[in-house]
Amino acid sequence: MPHAKFMHGSAEETETAFYDAMSRADIEAMMTLWADDDEIVCIHPNATRLHGHAAIRAAFESLFERGGVHIRARQLHVTHNLSTSIHNLVEELHQASESDREMHILATNIYMKTPRGWRIVLHHASVAPGAAPEENVSSTTLH
Amino acid sequence: MPHAKFMHGSAEETETAFYDAMSRADIEAMMTLWADDDEIVCIHPNATRLHGHAAIRAAFESLFERGGVHIRARQLHVTHNLSTSIHNLVEELHQASESDREMHILATNIYMKTPRGWRIVLHHASVAPGAAPEENVSSTTLH
Repeated sequence: MPHAKFMHGSAEETETAFYDAMSRADIEAMMTLWADDDEIVCIHPNATRLHGHAAIRAAFESLFERGGVHIRARQLHVTHNLSTSIHNLVEELHQASESDREMHILATNIYMKTPRGWRIVLHHASVAPGAAPEENVSSTTLH
Repeated sequence: MPHAKFMHGSAEETETAFYDAMSRADIEAMMTLWADDDEIVCIHPNATRLHGHAAIRAAFESLFERGGVHIRARQLHVTHNLSTSIHNLVEELHQASESDREMHILATNIYMKTPRGWRIVLHHASVAPGAAPEENVSSTTLH
């Protein structure tokens, strides 16, 4: 799929495609973003660990039955080297309820460069107390 | 420090040293394991995100005031390439109380190869409901 390869030419593009697939509840688009590897791991907030394509797909299918999830990724921290990009960010839910403002969601997204482009190998999201603190963020490269 | 370099010759050795420093409440040993990078990130269970050495050190100092934390790392999943090793595991607390058995802690630990050996760039721990499910685990390499 040369088209997909061009579309996912960087970890940032794969991340954009990840949250786009979430918002559209598009299970096929979501699953093509994951690495072709049995050891991929996905942890949704307040949920147990999922590993492997079948378990991760089933959980997203179940989530998407209730429609798309609109998330704005912000306060991104990035550490990367040539073959791996590690993102940590705040997942801000659109149309958050009053109770949602008493917590925020932190996510670690890890991308590895594969022959098919930058693919997700791990998504770990969890709940943190209070509103997300404001901070200045930047990115860096480890050699 | 050639001694430290030899001691941390692999991501697995750095991980062992991390949980050892936790158990001994050894702040200096703990902090030498982290990458020399402003973008390092640490998330303790039910806590907000910390980034950078100063914030991470302060949180561990506060934690260690109450003594060492004895954790058995188990059900490890590993994905790695030449320069990065991504570990996801269950952190089992020794002497867990009755209420602790109604939850378990999942941790993502990321190690990057640096001129000073394999160093931690991110630790993301969070609470998951129920007892940790038993599963068979293995590891893999992405090229």
